[in-house]
Amino acid sequence: MSEYTPNPELDLVLERTIAVAPERVWAAWTDPKLMVQWFTPAPWKTASAEVDLRPGGGSTVTMESPEGEQYPNTGCYLVVDPNRLLVFTSVMGDDFRPKSPSNGAEDMPFTARIEITPSGDGGTHYRAVAMHADSGGRERHEQMGFHEGWGAALDQLVALMG
Amino acid sequence: MSEYTPNPELDLVLERTIAVAPERVWAAWTDPKLMVQWFTPAPWKTASAEVDLRPGGGSTVTMESPEGEQYPNTGCYLVVDPNRLLVFTSVMGDDFRPKSPSNGAEDMPFTARIEITPSGDGGTHYRAVAMHADSGGRERHEQMGFHEGWGAALDQLVALMG
Repeated sequence: MSEYTPNPELDLVLERTIAVAPERVWAAWTDPKLMVQWFTPAPWKTASAEVDLRPGGGSTVTMESPEGEQYPNTGCYLVVDPNRLLVFTSVMGDDFRPKSPSNGAEDMPFTARIEITPSGDGGTHYRAVAMHADSGGRERHEQMGFHEGWGAALDQLVALMG
Repeated sequence: MSEYTPNPELDLVLERTIAVAPERVWAAWTDPKLMVQWFTPAPWKTASAEVDLRPGGGSTVTMESPEGEQYPNTGCYLVVDPNRLLVFTSVMGDDFRPKSPSNGAEDMPFTARIEITPSGDGGTHYRAVAMHADSGGRERHEQMGFHEGWGAALDQLVALMG
């Protein structure tokens, strides 16, 4: 179901086969009660998650540092194809409204594709793609620790849902 | 079918009942061969239009000044609901990839909703909503002549399709 071919100059990819059923991967990504349990690599945590799960629906996930500082991240869902594909972006909020620096735009805009494919043994072939506007955005995201961070979060998803 | 309630601080709205059937309004907005005939108010014209009509599909509409200078505008379709609703944005390109200043982001990002509702007499209640990130974006778009420009283009659509 990998209809999208990543662009190595602009995209970052985390790909792994995990022993978690597609339906449970989907639940982990879309149920706020589950999201708060795995989404942010320890020792940080997820303070809260709000999800309006429809194309054009907004999301707010608030991460919390070990010192208790909170960092809300807002976004907008673009594709909601249950148990198969979730696409969302950081560059828009509720109802596809663009964000700007004055209303919460991030330094490093990206769109994420969470691709969920049955692996044949009851598990999931999982592919997460972060798409950036330009190669500088990809490099900054990589230097911020994309692979370590998204990988550690996925470890937590597997521990919770596997 | 106006599921969306415009925000007067952030949005600009052009609303009119026109003697053009919904199916023909939809065709005018989505068929490149028709788009080039009405999309840009005279004495400017539309040099070309490329349309990949699906959520995540890109569009490029190139406007041409009376002096022959060309100005391409790229965007991405978000909602494609034939004869009813077309939503697209200027802040992303093909496959929902964000744009940045280095790859074509505009000064004034917006998302547009083209709402097409049967008017009961074979015509269309037409509502176009331009959604901005902040009130400054709305004001700049208004000062650039949103109502005059989108209104003149709609006059051309009616003359072509009515």
